[in-house]
Amino acid sequence: MNNITIKTLAERLQVSVATVSKALKDSHEIGELTKQRVRQMAEELNYVPNLYASSLRRRKSKTIAVVLPEVADSYFSLAINGIESIAQKKGYHVLIYLTHENYRKQEEILKDFQSGRVDGVLMSTTTETTDHCHVVDLQISGVPIVFFDRVCEDIETAKITTNDFECGYIAGELLLKQGCKKIAFLSISSSLSISNKRANGFHKALADKNIKTSPKDIIDCKNDESFNYSHLKKILSHKNRPDGIIASVEKLTTTVYLVCKELNLRIPGDIKIISFSNLVSAPILNPSLTTITQPAFEMGAVAASILFKALEKPGFQLKKESMVIPSVLVERDSTK
Amino acid sequence: MNNITIKTLAERLQVSVATVSKALKDSHEIGELTKQRVRQMAEELNYVPNLYASSLRRRKSKTIAVVLPEVADSYFSLAINGIESIAQKKGYHVLIYLTHENYRKQEEILKDFQSGRVDGVLMSTTTETTDHCHVVDLQISGVPIVFFDRVCEDIETAKITTNDFECGYIAGELLLKQGCKKIAFLSISSSLSISNKRANGFHKALADKNIKTSPKDIIDCKNDESFNYSHLKKILSHKNRPDGIIASVEKLTTTVYLVCKELNLRIPGDIKIISFSNLVSAPILNPSLTTITQPAFEMGAVAASILFKALEKPGFQLKKESMVIPSVLVERDSTK
Repeated sequence: MNNITIKTLAERLQVSVATVSKALKDSHEIGELTKQRVRQMAEELNYVPNLYASSLRRRKSKTIAVVLPEVADSYFSLAINGIESIAQKKGYHVLIYLTHENYRKQEEILKDFQSGRVDGVLMSTTTETTDHCHVVDLQISGVPIVFFDRVCEDIETAKITTNDFECGYIAGELLLKQGCKKIAFLSISSSLSISNKRANGFHKALADKNIKTSPKDIIDCKNDESFNYSHLKKILSHKNRPDGIIASVEKLTTTVYLVCKELNLRIPGDIKIISFSNLVSAPILNPSLTTITQPAFEMGAVAASILFKALEKPGFQLKKESMVIPSVLVERDSTK
Repeated sequence: MNNITIKTLAERLQVSVATVSKALKDSHEIGELTKQRVRQMAEELNYVPNLYASSLRRRKSKTIAVVLPEVADSYFSLAINGIESIAQKKGYHVLIYLTHENYRKQEEILKDFQSGRVDGVLMSTTTETTDHCHVVDLQISGVPIVFFDRVCEDIETAKITTNDFECGYIAGELLLKQGCKKIAFLSISSSLSISNKRANGFHKALADKNIKTSPKDIIDCKNDESFNYSHLKKILSHKNRPDGIIASVEKLTTTVYLVCKELNLRIPGDIKIISFSNLVSAPILNPSLTTITQPAFEMGAVAASILFKALEKPGFQLKKESMVIPSVLVERDSTK
C-alpha cells in the first residue's frame, strides 16, 4: 500500500472527498467527465490498482474487526458479546482493536485493514474523530464497514444507534419533574454526534418548559479521569452549583459520585444524578443509580448481522440498513 | 496446516506431550534415541515442515494477540491498557481475542495463530482449560506465548502472576479478625490455578487459627450469572449461612450484593464481604467494598515487555522470566 489516499486525490483534483468516493464507485450522481478525471488521477497516482486488488482478497480471512475506543465500559463489553454471538454462528473470528479515543490510532488501524487482514469492520468512533477520509478509503478498498453507537454521520453506510435525542429529553424531563432548577449535562466530546444529540434532547426538554438554555449547561469532560475530577470538583464547589446532573457516559458517574462524597453533597438530597449507563452495579451503588440503559448486546448483534449480509450478498446496499433501537429509563434512588 | 498436533505425535509414540515438545526443541533432557523417534514420526506425519516454515514467517506481522476470557472485568480491561502502553512504543498492533471461558474457542484461536497471523501471544486462560496441548503446539510452531494472571502451570514459559496464595490468606485473616465464624470462598473454577491458590491461602489462614477447614467452605460458581444468583440465594437463605464471603473474582461481588439486598441481609452487619477486584466503583458501592486490588496495568505491561524481549532476541529464554507482582488490600466498609 502506498500513501495515496482518497484525500490526496480530492486535493489534487480540487473536488470533495465525497465526489472522489462516488466517482470511484461509479455512482450515477457524478457526471461522466468528473468520473474520467478521477479515474485518470487515480491511475496516475497508482491508487486504482489497489482498488482492483482489493476485490480479489475480499472475504478470505473469515475475520471481522471491531474497532472501539475502550473496553472498560459496560456498553462496549456487552456490545462485543452481541457481535460475537452472531460471528460465532457464522464461523468468523472477531478481532478487537482499541483506539483509546486517539484519532491517529484509529486512522492507522483502518489503514492496516486495507491489506486484507479482515473481511469487514464494525466501528464505534473516537471522540477525537472529525476527519473521516480514512473511513472512505477503507470503503473504497472494498472492505465494508458498519457503525454502531458512535457513528460518523457523513459516511454512507449502515448505522446502528439508539434514540439518543429522545433519551437526552427524557433525562432532562425527569430531573425537572423531580424539582431540579439547575441541570448540567456532562459531555464527553463536542465532535461526537451521539453526545450532541443527547445534549440537544436535554436542551429541548428545558425549552419545552420555557426554561432558558445556555451553552454553559454543557460541561465538557475529557478522556482524562483526573482532569474530570478536579474540573467537576470546582464546578460542584461553587455556590451556584448544579442540583441535577446528566452524565452522557458511564465512566463520568463514578467521578461524580466520588466528587460528591468528597464535598459531602448528598445524592439525591443535594444533587440528583442520571447516567447513560449499562453498569450491572447500578442497583448496588450508594445510592442506586438511575440510568438510561442502552440495548448494547442487541445493537452489537444487529450491527454484526447487517455486516454479514454485506459479506454474503454482492451488491448489498449497506446505507439502506440503518436502525434505531430504543434505550430504557430505569429510575432508582439517585433521582428520588 | 494439517490436523497433526503434538498430541497426535505423543499418542502414536506412546510418550508424553512434554517429551515430544522437548524432543522437538532438541532439549538436553531427552535421550538421542527418543529424539530420533520423535523426529521420524513428525516427518512421517508431515508435522516438522510446518515447524520449519514457521521460523520463516516469524516477526513479520508486527502484531501481538491478547487472548482473554472476557473484557467485562476491570482487571482485564486495565491489563489490556498496560499491554497496549508497551506495544504502542514498539510500534505493534494489539489484537484482542475473547474465549468467553470456552476451551474449544481458545483451542481454535491458538490454532489459527499458527498460520502466522501474529508474532506473539499474551494469554490468560479459560476456567475450562485442563488440556494444554494446543499451547505447546503454538510454542513448537515458533510463536512465543507469555501468560498473565490465569496461567497454565505445566507450560514452560514466562508467567506474570500476583501473590494469590498470600492474598487468599490475607482475606481469610481479615474476616477472622473482624469476627466472622463461618467464611465461604466463592471459586470460579476448580481447574484454575489462581482460584485454587487463593482458596488454599484462605484455608491456611483458618488452619493457622486452629479452625477446621472443609471442602464445603469452597462454593463453586459458574460462568453463568443466573445460576450463581440462585445458588448463592439458596446458600445465604440457610439458617446456618456464612457470615463472611471471599469473592475470588470481581463479577461475583455484584451477585452477592444483589442477593443480600433481596434477602435483607445487612453488609457488613449480618455478613462481611471482601473481593478480588479492580472495580473503580468499589468506593461508591453500598456499602463500599473491601478489595484485594491486583496490579492489573503493571501485570499487563510486564507481560508485554517480556514478550517483546523474546521477539527481539533470538534464543531468549522465556521460562526464566516469570514474575510475581504483589496485590494490595484496601479495607472499606464491607468488612467493618
